[in-house]
Amino acid sequence: MNFSSDNWAGAHPEISAALAEQAGGFATAYGQSELDRRVEQRFNEIFEREVAVFFVATGTAANSLSMAMLNRPGGVIFAHYKAHMIEDEGGAVEYITGGGRLHGVDGPMGRMNPEALDRAIRLFPAEFVHSGQPMAVSITQSSEIGTVYSLDEIDAIAATAKAHGLPLHMDGARFANALVALGTTPAEMTWKRGIDVLSFGGTKNGCWCAEAIVVMDPAKARDMPFLRKRAAQLFSKSRFIAAQFDAYFQDDLWLKSARHSNQMAQELGKLFSESANARLGWTPEANEVFPIIRKDVAKRLELEGANFYDWNPPADLALEEDEGLYRFVTSFATRAEDIETIRSLLA
Amino acid sequence: MNFSSDNWAGAHPEISAALAEQAGGFATAYGQSELDRRVEQRFNEIFEREVAVFFVATGTAANSLSMAMLNRPGGVIFAHYKAHMIEDEGGAVEYITGGGRLHGVDGPMGRMNPEALDRAIRLFPAEFVHSGQPMAVSITQSSEIGTVYSLDEIDAIAATAKAHGLPLHMDGARFANALVALGTTPAEMTWKRGIDVLSFGGTKNGCWCAEAIVVMDPAKARDMPFLRKRAAQLFSKSRFIAAQFDAYFQDDLWLKSARHSNQMAQELGKLFSESANARLGWTPEANEVFPIIRKDVAKRLELEGANFYDWNPPADLALEEDEGLYRFVTSFATRAEDIETIRSLLA
Amino acid sequence: MNFSSDNWAGAHPEISAALAEQAGGFATAYGQSELDRRVEQRFNEIFEREVAVFFVATGTAANSLSMAMLNRPGGVIFAHYKAHMIEDEGGAVEYITGGGRLHGVDGPMGRMNPEALDRAIRLFPAEFVHSGQPMAVSITQSSEIGTVYSLDEIDAIAATAKAHGLPLHMDGARFANALVALGTTPAEMTWKRGIDVLSFGGTKNGCWCAEAIVVMDPAKARDMPFLRKRAAQLFSKSRFIAAQFDAYFQDDLWLKSARHSNQMAQELGKLFSESANARLGWTPEANEVFPIIRKDVAKRLELEGANFYDWNPPADLALEEDEGLYRFVTSFATRAEDIETIRSLLA
Amino acid sequence: MNFSSDNWAGAHPEISAALAEQAGGFATAYGQSELDRRVEQRFNEIFEREVAVFFVATGTAANSLSMAMLNRPGGVIFAHYKAHMIEDEGGAVEYITGGGRLHGVDGPMGRMNPEALDRAIRLFPAEFVHSGQPMAVSITQSSEIGTVYSLDEIDAIAATAKAHGLPLHMDGARFANALVALGTTPAEMTWKRGIDVLSFGGTKNGCWCAEAIVVMDPAKARDMPFLRKRAAQLFSKSRFIAAQFDAYFQDDLWLKSARHSNQMAQELGKLFSESANARLGWTPEANEVFPIIRKDVAKRLELEGANFYDWNPPADLALEEDEGLYRFVTSFATRAEDIETIRSLLA
Repeated sequence: MNFSSDNWAGAHPEISAALAEQAGGFATAYGQSELDRRVEQRFNEIFEREVAVFFVATGTAANSLSMAMLNRPGGVIFAHYKAHMIEDEGGAVEYITGGGRLHGVDGPMGRMNPEALDRAIRLFPAEFVHSGQPMAVSITQSSEIGTVYSLDEIDAIAATAKAHGLPLHMDGARFANALVALGTTPAEMTWKRGIDVLSFGGTKNGCWCAEAIVVMDPAKARDMPFLRKRAAQLFSKSRFIAAQFDAYFQDDLWLKSARHSNQMAQELGKLFSESANARLGWTPEANEVFPIIRKDVAKRLELEGANFYDWNPPADLALEEDEGLYRFVTSFATRAEDIETIRSLLA
Repeated sequence: MNFSSDNWAGAHPEISAALAEQAGGFATAYGQSELDRRVEQRFNEIFEREVAVFFVATGTAANSLSMAMLNRPGGVIFAHYKAHMIEDEGGAVEYITGGGRLHGVDGPMGRMNPEALDRAIRLFPAEFVHSGQPMAVSITQSSEIGTVYSLDEIDAIAATAKAHGLPLHMDGARFANALVALGTTPAEMTWKRGIDVLSFGGTKNGCWCAEAIVVMDPAKARDMPFLRKRAAQLFSKSRFIAAQFDAYFQDDLWLKSARHSNQMAQELGKLFSESANARLGWTPEANEVFPIIRKDVAKRLELEGANFYDWNPPADLALEEDEGLYRFVTSFATRAEDIETIRSLLA
Repeated sequence: MNFSSDNWAGAHPEISAALAEQAGGFATAYGQSELDRRVEQRFNEIFEREVAVFFVATGTAANSLSMAMLNRPGGVIFAHYKAHMIEDEGGAVEYITGGGRLHGVDGPMGRMNPEALDRAIRLFPAEFVHSGQPMAVSITQSSEIGTVYSLDEIDAIAATAKAHGLPLHMDGARFANALVALGTTPAEMTWKRGIDVLSFGGTKNGCWCAEAIVVMDPAKARDMPFLRKRAAQLFSKSRFIAAQFDAYFQDDLWLKSARHSNQMAQELGKLFSESANARLGWTPEANEVFPIIRKDVAKRLELEGANFYDWNPPADLALEEDEGLYRFVTSFATRAEDIETIRSLLA
Repeated sequence: MNFSSDNWAGAHPEISAALAEQAGGFATAYGQSELDRRVEQRFNEIFEREVAVFFVATGTAANSLSMAMLNRPGGVIFAHYKAHMIEDEGGAVEYITGGGRLHGVDGPMGRMNPEALDRAIRLFPAEFVHSGQPMAVSITQSSEIGTVYSLDEIDAIAATAKAHGLPLHMDGARFANALVALGTTPAEMTWKRGIDVLSFGGTKNGCWCAEAIVVMDPAKARDMPFLRKRAAQLFSKSRFIAAQFDAYFQDDLWLKSARHSNQMAQELGKLFSESANARLGWTPEANEVFPIIRKDVAKRLELEGANFYDWNPPADLALEEDEGLYRFVTSFATRAEDIETIRSLLA
């Protein structure tokens, strides 16, 4: 019963099989193989336009190099104050941009508020050299707390960013989960909304290690091959990434996996909301569930073998003294039977 | 007949199988799983001491982060002027060290000459702030041109480095090939000779993607977890690297693969040296062969499906006008039958 | 009637004269002249211990290089959220530390609250690689809003920093103003309180350009000459800085100038507090005064030739609609007659 | 008798006087004063076009920020292998560009050879990500060994740079000395030849501290204010630089000083070439003289109070065992009587 994180799962059997199949033979290194080219073409189809795709090793690398591509001296990046870039990347964005600054923006439910974003950007007036200069806006879809920006909400953020002449990045470590939650298309959720650069994650949704930077306008990606190489993120046997993405997209495996994962989260959510010993902190929209559980019950779950994380309650969430907030993450590997076990333990 | 590079091969079947086997189940992310711990323990056994091991995505990352660990302001790194760090890493060492400088040192046959190294270091007198300060020495084992430092030669380099108070790094992208060429042990080829930090490569010898930084004195590696995270090189599903190394070390697979690879290089070498249409540029010592071939014959080989690279002849190698210098690299995947085909085409 | 900033004044006549006197003759460049040595010795006397002194071009350079000296990968610096480093240095600290992060800490009256500092540091638990690692604490003395940490308050901050094993930096752009406000000694206000590194500013107190980094334990400054050179902050004609500091310390010119400046601020403060058209936002403690003035009156002051800045009111300061908050800065060059003019205009 | 360096002299009396005159009164800080604007206008006149001017603290800062403005990821800068950037800036260019690489180019007499430059650039083929990408060419005028590029020679270098699409920088730490040596105009020696960015030095020619970056096309300087601020190179009391340049340009003081300096070098050169105990290593063209002197005679000069530096002889300069190569630098402050003393001591 592992709900610690979607990166505690291994690889989906079909992805594992594709990797094994590719193990033989020879192929051009450094991303120049036929398979690399084919997978790049798949990205074009999926995004309904020609995009530039760059495989990298980690989601942190995708985010950091996206920012490096948009870099300006004294540059300030605007993201939700709980964004992964700010809370969980060990200074990689600052480092890989050579000293960029992350400015946390408020907003309820893990999503930036467009007015708060506007106010934040205005703290850095153009040409006022002492405070640095705005450089980019980044949203996380789905967010760190399992919520999803609606298309309208992305529009509102994009409008604010564009009003200030700023490019818009999406951290899509859980892109597929958000996509199927909204029931929309990659094109609709990204460039049609104004997203310029996307960190496209496959790892949390069933790959071993498959992350890509997708630049919507390839003309703007001119320096990315050099940025990636310089950051030691160019794989020699690049086809081991390509093979994973190839299987990921095959027969919509990625969407099926995300749907399964979200469905498991819905069932977990329902279960917590119906329990006498638990309730939901907020409604799960993707593959993360944040229940408030009686501490002794949570302890019992752990003793019975369930893994999940404690979570710091947001300021506006009132908990009783004997309650705790927890995070349960589902994935392609989550089994219905584990949810049933949780249900029985919770009762 | 692919001799372009050892990173054009895929993964060894046993490594591929180990990865598939690990695909199921859940494991702690970010290098904290039992398998990660077990593989770290294997490194201790192999190096006959407690070492600190850090998996990273590429050989360039291993080299760059090794240098970042040894970093000093205005720091100068001394390496053979044809070293991979200098010629082939797109500025990653300079970037990841925040502006370090690589100083090329002379030496015949791809190996630094200790006297040339001493002279080079003396160009940067201690406390003379204008020229920067020496920071580290790095050797490549086996070298970029398929030669191997003997243990005595490593001793001589180490003595020079230590005389100047400098730490010594080994770029072991082809560590196993050098090791079996010398018939020695990892401990003897590294810390017993004075190596402080090692880039330990598995990718070129049959892994998909398995590179590690090995710090011989773990006390000196205190900051490495932060350096690695900040450089976006910490894998979430770290066990996909661990699983590869686990299989790599199992039943000496790594040594067997390297022996096969070197053996294929020896046969290729013999073949070129015996041919009327070719000769050897120099004697192969690991898994790279540099023949001088009549250009029309080389062309014929290519037309018949052999892949290999043109190579710039060193200044002291005299070629006839109708001759070219080429590089043939062997690997775990090189087949004896391909060598036979080369033999027949060459004749 | 110029109250815009203490850096709008030129140079004190005695400093100007000393510079003119030094213009002739020859002296060793790059900080190795006898005058440089003599001034370094003066710093030892002033701080009552052997310190290491490094002249740099700007206060921003002093702050940034101080942080670079204390640098750690993924490092987080804790400073008051209104600190100059955070608000006014255009990303220099982040840049010169190669990606360090500034974390704003709360506290009333421009001073960090020790408990808030403790809570902030605890957000970055040791060894939790994802959030980076604490690296240094920095306080500004006097603060951005003209207040001064008492010796006890510095003790409390130092105790918190040391409890977490963190070095403590003081941004002393207005060091002299704080010193005479407290009526204490440089030693008492710095290393006896636990300050490890000091940005010692002379520019705002009557020099043209004289800023120094003072490292209390010279053994810890080993890399600073290289850090400074690498940051392009080593002056060739270093004695032009030395000559300024020489005159600055001569016959306590620096203390006299600061006393004059603070006295002018006190008189301004009194004047505003007694006016029917103004009141004080808070009590001035050094050389900055923040009056709340009726907007029409402030407008009149400007029309009559007074220069001063608008200031964003802190959240806890209630203003009437027809009132504004303003900043008046005094310096060695502020004349009593200008204050009288303000008085008459204000009435 | 001080010939160690032109940065051992203090400030020209007229510059010193101008600085004293500016000491009083108040002026807008951070480069926005009327004097700053007036001096910027003077640069426009001197360069016969609208240029963008940025004062910085050191020549190293001017060079490094010029390169930062031209920065590309994995960028390689081409300069003469003895250039100040390569030999004497402590890694500042690498640091301030965030990891740029300096590639030394051959050429006789301290000047890059255009064919050697072309060959060097070709080592880094466009789009070959592994070797990085060419970024800029930099020449030093006058050179490190007191020679001067003719206008035709600058044309040849510019043609090579432009053929590869590379911007061209001039390190003009001794710009005035080269200018009067050629008897040309600033415009002719720079943008009319293809120079894009210039490090314009005043310090070595009689200022205390006056260095500027001159960007020939202001539209390309958009980010420079942020680059400069972020590098801690924006002076608050900027007018102390402006005042120096104001006096520097007044009544052609800068040209007169450079002419004096060059004239002194010519007389020194003549003196050495006529002495029985000395000869010239090469012909002085600006304000540096490199005599070969009998070691015992050189020793005697030093004992009698002459200061000058030993110099490493270039490979193609044959010295007798009892001879040494030395560097004598002249400046605005060099006195004819000191040269006469050298003459009498030499005889």
